[in-house]
Amino acid sequence: MTDLEKQLDFIYEIDKLKYIERMTCLFNSTRNENDAEHSWHLCMMALVLHGQSNEKIDLLKVLKMLLIHDIVEIDAGDTFLFDTKKNHDNTEEELKAAKRIFGMLPEEQGVELIKVWQEFEAAETAEAKFAKAIDRLAPMMQNATNNGGTWAQHNVSYETVIEKKKRIKDGSESLWNYAKGLADNYYKKA
Amino acid sequence: MTDLEKQLDFIYEIDKLKYIERMTCLFNSTRNENDAEHSWHLCMMALVLHGQSNEKIDLLKVLKMLLIHDIVEIDAGDTFLFDTKKNHDNTEEELKAAKRIFGMLPEEQGVELIKVWQEFEAAETAEAKFAKAIDRLAPMMQNATNNGGTWAQHNVSYETVIEKKKRIKDGSESLWNYAKGLADNYYKKA
Repeated sequence: MTDLEKQLDFIYEIDKLKYIERMTCLFNSTRNENDAEHSWHLCMMALVLHGQSNEKIDLLKVLKMLLIHDIVEIDAGDTFLFDTKKNHDNTEEELKAAKRIFGMLPEEQGVELIKVWQEFEAAETAEAKFAKAIDRLAPMMQNATNNGGTWAQHNVSYETVIEKKKRIKDGSESLWNYAKGLADNYYKKA
Repeated sequence: MTDLEKQLDFIYEIDKLKYIERMTCLFNSTRNENDAEHSWHLCMMALVLHGQSNEKIDLLKVLKMLLIHDIVEIDAGDTFLFDTKKNHDNTEEELKAAKRIFGMLPEEQGVELIKVWQEFEAAETAEAKFAKAIDRLAPMMQNATNNGGTWAQHNVSYETVIEKKKRIKDGSESLWNYAKGLADNYYKKA
């Protein structure tokens, strides 16, 4: 196979992300969001909000992370952040998925994207911390416009929301202030 | 309003892109694609295919173009490439939309994104030619897996497809070879 044939096969394969439904709904809506449109929205958030990052960041790296961050769910499925049975960081299954799916690409390109995905998951670099902050913020905004959304549906406590979401602060103090305000307002803590 | 408040209002507003249905369907599917998931898929195509560009390109610029290229459709709607009544480049209505929607952002940021969108529409720079090539290629791939898709539904001739799509070559010779092959194969010209 030529490099182009490998790249095209990968492009056909990742169409499947459009069929993966998330727990969260669109703003003011009862329609669930899919992983592909979610990924687009996070990229747009990064594009307009990158100046809110605590540290100086490479926007291209952040966009790469957000474009690919959920592709492993084609094999591993979407794990709900507030799931009490299954660990959200289902690393082994997701790593296998990353190797299969990014492994469809020409070797150098596949290796690069697996590294970008692992950097995102590790949440240690400035870019990964900011990308994670965006990924954690978006569903809070969605829940806030949907009468509590998944918080209400799953009886999630205020303390749990804050505990699971407070790492937004690692990426952006200002976005964490906004995010905490959304939870405070919904749980009448303000 | 603070810059952050303006940015957040914009992020809520562009959620509407997820409700705009395109004429084309997902691969091997009868489900129409929406503009948000379409924009994600084009970014992924640019990410893996940018080496196929005729000219050296700034990938970040290309991603910005593809992320925002359809946002004007929130006000102006999706215009079908093979529509014989309405011009596809409905510039006046789209420019008004761009000014309203990107105008929600802090001024400097809004002006930058309008410029990026105009550069894409003008299709003169290397980045815009490549981004346009990707945007023209994707529905051809979708039609090829859907028994002709919109080509079949609207009795579009082979000559019209080639005429409307041949500018893919301006962005990438290799992607044009592939795209032409898809049309040749469907119309039994190969």
